[in-house]
Amino acid sequence: MNTASGLTYAILGTGALGGYYGACLQKAGLEVHYLLRSDYAHVKQHGLIVETPDGDFRLPQVNAYQSVQDMPRCDVVVVALKTTQNHLLPDLLPPVVKDEGVVLVLQNGLGVEAAAAAIAGAERILGGLCFLCSNKVGPGHIRHLDYKKIAMGEYSATGAAVGITERLRRIAADFEQAGIPIELAADLVLARWKKLMWNIPFNGLSVVLNATTQEMMANPDSLALAEALMREVMQGAAAQGRAIAPEFVQTMLVHTAEMQPYRTSMKIDYDEQRPLEVEAMYGSPLRAAQAAGVQLPQIQTLYQQLRFLDAQNRSSQRQD
Amino acid sequence: MNTASGLTYAILGTGALGGYYGACLQKAGLEVHYLLRSDYAHVKQHGLIVETPDGDFRLPQVNAYQSVQDMPRCDVVVVALKTTQNHLLPDLLPPVVKDEGVVLVLQNGLGVEAAAAAIAGAERILGGLCFLCSNKVGPGHIRHLDYKKIAMGEYSATGAAVGITERLRRIAADFEQAGIPIELAADLVLARWKKLMWNIPFNGLSVVLNATTQEMMANPDSLALAEALMREVMQGAAAQGRAIAPEFVQTMLVHTAEMQPYRTSMKIDYDEQRPLEVEAMYGSPLRAAQAAGVQLPQIQTLYQQLRFLDAQNRSSQRQD
Repeated sequence: MNTASGLTYAILGTGALGGYYGACLQKAGLEVHYLLRSDYAHVKQHGLIVETPDGDFRLPQVNAYQSVQDMPRCDVVVVALKTTQNHLLPDLLPPVVKDEGVVLVLQNGLGVEAAAAAIAGAERILGGLCFLCSNKVGPGHIRHLDYKKIAMGEYSATGAAVGITERLRRIAADFEQAGIPIELAADLVLARWKKLMWNIPFNGLSVVLNATTQEMMANPDSLALAEALMREVMQGAAAQGRAIAPEFVQTMLVHTAEMQPYRTSMKIDYDEQRPLEVEAMYGSPLRAAQAAGVQLPQIQTLYQQLRFLDAQNRSSQRQD
Repeated sequence: MNTASGLTYAILGTGALGGYYGACLQKAGLEVHYLLRSDYAHVKQHGLIVETPDGDFRLPQVNAYQSVQDMPRCDVVVVALKTTQNHLLPDLLPPVVKDEGVVLVLQNGLGVEAAAAAIAGAERILGGLCFLCSNKVGPGHIRHLDYKKIAMGEYSATGAAVGITERLRRIAADFEQAGIPIELAADLVLARWKKLMWNIPFNGLSVVLNATTQEMMANPDSLALAEALMREVMQGAAAQGRAIAPEFVQTMLVHTAEMQPYRTSMKIDYDEQRPLEVEAMYGSPLRAAQAAGVQLPQIQTLYQQLRFLDAQNRSSQRQD
């Protein structure tokens, strides 16, 4: 096991995801600073509680902040906001990134690092895909249910694969020390498309069909539709020069069938009437494919349905 | 105005559609016999009430039957059941069609005449598309809201256009006399595809998006999706050798925008937890296009979503 790197971490967005990873890092001995919004007062006073199959723990004292102006500059700034909050980054990032620091964007979707790159410079951006099943069940109270791995890689403005750098290894070592398995992604764009293989069918269909993963896997029509959507994701990846082996479809389906019945993150956002991450997860991959002359009509259908449902969900017009 | 033809009519399915057209025919002096199920006792005693913008009317005495065994054989047997009930036709049709009689299938979708043709012979089948906005609001109580035209044509087993026959004109004249505008369709398959131009986008999306026509027209994403689905319907029609002019898309959209906010028939079926006419309206057109080597991926997406929602809707598993 590595010893702590001495890197300092800022967590922008201390929810089910940022709160979980931040708490794990802190528990492992790293210096972590948390930006909070609604939970600030509670967490400042009571700290964080993490329920996890790995063994529940409590951090009575955490470095909690209500504003980035009060935070120290950190070596690694973890963006753990929803992509629908990325318009806040111009205000959030500059005060908190060290001159030689990096920004680790832990968000789903494609091209989600662009917002941070425009502020901090593409050369200081890393991206990560979290395979995490975690909920925030109360202020500063996180319930980690299953999975925790992060696939992490270097970002480049062109989308070209950067390979695995020393700084990436060093950050990965901190997470590993905190008990988080890290998959080092030499090609971040490929890692993002592979994550979309699951997210595009199951997040979107869970909202449109009002269904859990178990219900979608059990019905032959939704299962066939999920498979067809995965094949379109493969076409999108191929349009960006990324080959995903056809067998990966079956791997993902077997994996999903073995999961506990699961309400996807997009379904949770929908049920809570929060904005859906439609652009990061659907709009951006569709535009990337279209730019290469490839149409993905089934994903396009789901995309426009989700945009409609998202708009209705957040207006007062919805009747049900 | 023509005088009554002397043809006798049987109405199989005395609901919002069959009840309305049957009552109009009877009011115009024609002999009409109605098959009823749940409303039989009420209608036998009280007759039919029709509210309509053309002037409400009541028929205190109607020829009501609970079983086709009790009905006289008729010249024109109007199939006004949902397509999901077509498995009943082998029992319903034989006792009620005259030897020289015809069967007029007033159903949406493609290939819906095949069930009747298998029983009565393809040469005795007519098909009709109803442009009707009508609800059954109580036993024997029909509320006609808007539209009433029927596009009517001769069926052929091969799908070839038959042209306009004398018997078709004679039946059309009866409906015209009853105040129902008739469009004589020389090519029934073309007429069916044209009706699908509206039904495929708006019926399906109204269920998946839980939306009225007005809501779908007002949102740019659902509107664009409806247009794209219409273009796929055109491709399906073309695969069967039927050319629909591209301008027809705009005609339909303008028409839909001018309609009163409308809950589609499929949405009503869904809300009432009745079976959806998914196969007639989606499965059959998809299979017809596929047989000609044409894939319609956006319609395919909607089809599989609807099959899932229909199955969930009629099981006890649905959670909302």
